[in-house]
Amino acid sequence: MKMSEGVEWALHTCVNLSWTDPGDAVPAARLAEVFSLPTAYLSKHLQALARAGILISTTGPRGGFRLGRDPASITLLDVVTAIEGPEDAFRCRQILKDGPGGRPDVDYRRTCTISQAMRKAELAWRTALAEQTIADVRRTVEQRDPTAPEATRERLR
Amino acid sequence: MKMSEGVEWALHTCVNLSWTDPGDAVPAARLAEVFSLPTAYLSKHLQALARAGILISTTGPRGGFRLGRDPASITLLDVVTAIEGPEDAFRCRQILKDGPGGRPDVDYRRTCTISQAMRKAELAWRTALAEQTIADVRRTVEQRDPTAPEATRERLR
Repeated sequence: MKMSEGVEWALHTCVNLSWTDPGDAVPAARLAEVFSLPTAYLSKHLQALARAGILISTTGPRGGFRLGRDPASITLLDVVTAIEGPEDAFRCRQILKDGPGGRPDVDYRRTCTISQAMRKAELAWRTALAEQTIADVRRTVEQRDPTAPEATRERLR
Repeated sequence: MKMSEGVEWALHTCVNLSWTDPGDAVPAARLAEVFSLPTAYLSKHLQALARAGILISTTGPRGGFRLGRDPASITLLDVVTAIEGPEDAFRCRQILKDGPGGRPDVDYRRTCTISQAMRKAELAWRTALAEQTIADVRRTVEQRDPTAPEATRERLR
């Protein structure tokens, strides 16, 4: 089970954009260049973030991407969900329907004990992701490396 | 991000085997038949469980699979790890190495704030899986459907 690389790219890009001047849009090519990422592939993920309202995409000579809302209002779960989709990693296929006493009219995704146990764990993961924001990450990065904001701003200019 | 169907099959099969008489091995074909699963594909997963010590595989006329240890000592995490492998879903590719001030000698999988935040969430998921055992699942199933153990035993005989 593997998450898309796009999650790593998207999270770092959101932190980077949180350091730019508010209102300034950064072209996808510039955002990709910071980490030597392939622009076209990063663009695809940036568009997914824009569809989720995490980024705002503008066109024109000074167009590009900027944060769609305050970094304190963007959780890691928001970013992961925008890239990976909202579906659970464990997808109950309701094999109990074909088991002893299985009933075609029961939704085992809801009633099966195993399905519930797996969902409980997935909820713990999502909760932990939802408890951390881009602002939290940014704060920790700045504490560890006070030069990061300015260095990043330079590279994105 | 999607978990293998094999996880669902493996968990249900472990619960089913916990209801058989201790020492009795059940052929893969019989275990597959209970849920109308493809035997060859289920076998592959059962062998992964055997490699992890969750099942014991025996050959010969009365051969097959049985639990390798007490159901109270088999956690959902054990089963998930046996099927999916031990790697995290989020795989840090250390893109900070190519970022502003990135250093080739630093292991960003350990030091990157985003990598740490993602690992924290994954740990919450693993902890929740580790807190639930096959015996816990079996107990809940039996409370909800007291006929399940005997019905399953019949099908596996």
